[in-house]
Amino acid sequence: MVTISPDRQAAQAAAAASTALLTDHYELTMLQASLRSGAAHRRSVFEVFARKLPDGRRYGVVAGTGRLLDAIAAFSFGDEQLAFLERTGVVDRATIDWLAQYRFRGAVRGYAEGETYFPHSPILEVEATFAEGVLLETLILSVLNHDSAIASAASRMTSAAAGRPCIEMGSRRTHEQAAVASARAAYLAGFASTSNLEAGYRYGVPTVGTSAHAFTLVHDTERDAFQAQLAALGKGTTLLVDTFDVAEAVRVAVEVAGADLGAVRLDSGDLLWMAHRVRRQLDQLGARDTKIVVTSDLDEYAIAALASAPVDAYGVGTQLVTGSGAPTAAMVYKLVARAASPGPDAPLVPVEKRSPDKPSRGGRKQACRRIDADGVATAEMIRIGAQPADPDSRRRDLIAPLMTNGEPVRRATLEEGRELHRRSLAELPISATQLSRGDAVIPTVYEYGDELEHEARDGWAR
Amino acid sequence: MVTISPDRQAAQAAAAASTALLTDHYELTMLQASLRSGAAHRRSVFEVFARKLPDGRRYGVVAGTGRLLDAIAAFSFGDEQLAFLERTGVVDRATIDWLAQYRFRGAVRGYAEGETYFPHSPILEVEATFAEGVLLETLILSVLNHDSAIASAASRMTSAAAGRPCIEMGSRRTHEQAAVASARAAYLAGFASTSNLEAGYRYGVPTVGTSAHAFTLVHDTERDAFQAQLAALGKGTTLLVDTFDVAEAVRVAVEVAGADLGAVRLDSGDLLWMAHRVRRQLDQLGARDTKIVVTSDLDEYAIAALASAPVDAYGVGTQLVTGSGAPTAAMVYKLVARAASPGPDAPLVPVEKRSPDKPSRGGRKQACRRIDADGVATAEMIRIGAQPADPDSRRRDLIAPLMTNGEPVRRATLEEGRELHRRSLAELPISATQLSRGDAVIPTVYEYGDELEHEARDGWAR
Repeated sequence: MVTISPDRQAAQAAAAASTALLTDHYELTMLQASLRSGAAHRRSVFEVFARKLPDGRRYGVVAGTGRLLDAIAAFSFGDEQLAFLERTGVVDRATIDWLAQYRFRGAVRGYAEGETYFPHSPILEVEATFAEGVLLETLILSVLNHDSAIASAASRMTSAAAGRPCIEMGSRRTHEQAAVASARAAYLAGFASTSNLEAGYRYGVPTVGTSAHAFTLVHDTERDAFQAQLAALGKGTTLLVDTFDVAEAVRVAVEVAGADLGAVRLDSGDLLWMAHRVRRQLDQLGARDTKIVVTSDLDEYAIAALASAPVDAYGVGTQLVTGSGAPTAAMVYKLVARAASPGPDAPLVPVEKRSPDKPSRGGRKQACRRIDADGVATAEMIRIGAQPADPDSRRRDLIAPLMTNGEPVRRATLEEGRELHRRSLAELPISATQLSRGDAVIPTVYEYGDELEHEARDGWAR
Repeated sequence: MVTISPDRQAAQAAAAASTALLTDHYELTMLQASLRSGAAHRRSVFEVFARKLPDGRRYGVVAGTGRLLDAIAAFSFGDEQLAFLERTGVVDRATIDWLAQYRFRGAVRGYAEGETYFPHSPILEVEATFAEGVLLETLILSVLNHDSAIASAASRMTSAAAGRPCIEMGSRRTHEQAAVASARAAYLAGFASTSNLEAGYRYGVPTVGTSAHAFTLVHDTERDAFQAQLAALGKGTTLLVDTFDVAEAVRVAVEVAGADLGAVRLDSGDLLWMAHRVRRQLDQLGARDTKIVVTSDLDEYAIAALASAPVDAYGVGTQLVTGSGAPTAAMVYKLVARAASPGPDAPLVPVEKRSPDKPSRGGRKQACRRIDADGVATAEMIRIGAQPADPDSRRRDLIAPLMTNGEPVRRATLEEGRELHRRSLAELPISATQLSRGDAVIPTVYEYGDELEHEARDGWAR
């Protein structure tokens, strides 16, 4: 029997609870160097954005914000973490002492979870000292890049399914913890449920599932397996009918369950042809209400191709958890403004790098979606400068506070994010939900606020 | 300031430590149904294999085994997990009582971490009761599919780098926990180091890193930033030189650091052209030993394309953590044999499904690599049946015990896995390391043992 000593279990648990080392070595060396130079204490604004959407995609979906706020709250260095940093010489004693006291005390603003986004949308803003903000780069990007990639793929799938429920079942094809986050992100973007139990436990995502081929094979006959499943789970269950011969399995399934069998599942073969054949057979057997669930390497295109088939639900695995060709959202975290000097009241100045193919646009941003008279989004408006634009019925503000002085403000629920996503997607031009490749469905437009124009005349760094 | 109450922290930690819900709903419903039918207690053999390699790949790399053994040890249901299952009605009372007592008591055998694999290689075998084995499906596949996908990509990258060190730095482009596993898998497959601190803490992977553009931008001038970094980290550090103008930055870098500056980093632009230009400039400035590190969306092809450039190290991010186009290894977990009846001494019979495009091959497997007189691998030999083949100098056995009666046997270290990978790759035909697309570099060949032939004559299920 496997046993873990209580001590080891406690140490593992404590280590797992801290997110402080889920970061890159260079953030700590930058911290050390900036503590020496004094730049560590300069008020700074970091921004998360994506230079582009994945190839051919018309929009992206922001996801992970809720998880991120938990992860920032758990970002503190315990004795074990500090001992590791000392033992390996990652940073010096002064930096370790600073880290021992570290808690994030800054402000976070950003797009709500479930919101759609476009190239250069300022998805998240962190305002803190340089030291406090620079430490969070990797953690913030890991959470947002992963979850947004999954939600962006999931949203296309639920659109393609056109109201038929999608079931997330890709856990086995991704890292065991990424699986939980994937289930959450898929639900945010309209999936009905997941196979992942931890996602049910942690986030309340509805979970579903009945049986695999192994269950049929461990019994002496398929009939034995069906009877066992029906006895345990009732007639509303879903029987897997493609272990041996589908037509025979469907016949036996209805024979043992009766015409009120809940559903059958097809997991192989030509699903379009097979769904038609099975529907006809079920109807002939009187099982007119028995549903058909299909689950074999589906992506948004395969789902769309089954639109005319008598399919009642789609189970989506690999393609969901791998972002359907775009497993990361390619968001970056850039310093866009910082205090002109170390003092707490020093004015912010925009900063930007000028690397050839990776330019960034300095200055703190506001963002809103411009809406036309019919309620359709026409542009992602990004305003650079200190003041937000005047309130306007034809603009929907996109940025809201998420943390103030290191404390989370009211947290949106996953259900609220789901509803926001539904509304945000419905507001986009209809071509957003076409699967064909194209550019972002609305353009990103920059506006320049008064204050920034003044700063810009001074050469962007006064 | 963010504070988490000790209670909440303890609950989070306990929840994080259990891996029991990192599984699919259907595994628990299969458990419930098989407890009812009695099939739960049949001795069973499950096998992990991949039907194919990712498109165009010549070999795969097994990774995750070490992590998996820890995850199986932590697979037990605590009060919180059981309360969740009861509250949501996932399974009935009898099943919950069974789960409360669950510890894996079976045997696990398999390929060692770092070993190369091919289509249908029997990478892992779990022998246990059906109930004990079926519960582990998702966890086993999540760990092996993720880590093997990353290691398989990493191995191609280190081959392409031809001895120049590769640095893993993709944490920000994948789930925050997948990032840690990715760093581990990359190290296994020959990467020299990682940026991910948690991978250093948990697994002892060497960590490296110096600074980002934000560090330059938070200072008033690039010179200030370089001076701050040198003061904190010494002359052996790596200065990032592409924030504004590379030539000017290199000039300033050598001016402030002297000719014994450790390295400069290029993170944008045409790296081939830029590396040549910077090398010439460094040499002219007398900094002949200053190294050049390049880091911008590299994959194995980009690395190979830089072979002739004066580059000293490659930093690889996005393409590593996304498996360079193959983010999952597509391994499956199939029941291949089970007892003819529930008793503990009942003989095993092979089982296999017959789904149209996803057949499986029943029966317990042995595997070895056939080696020719020059020490080059010529085939992946899979023997179906109870007896291993006679020992033979021209075969290398691939399967070793990993757990017996639920207890891990001696665990290979990560360094041993690294060494095994180096040897296993060196043993393959040289074309394995060509980047061009092709089939598996050696064929998979089946042999049939005596006992199985007997069983097969009986119709595969006596």
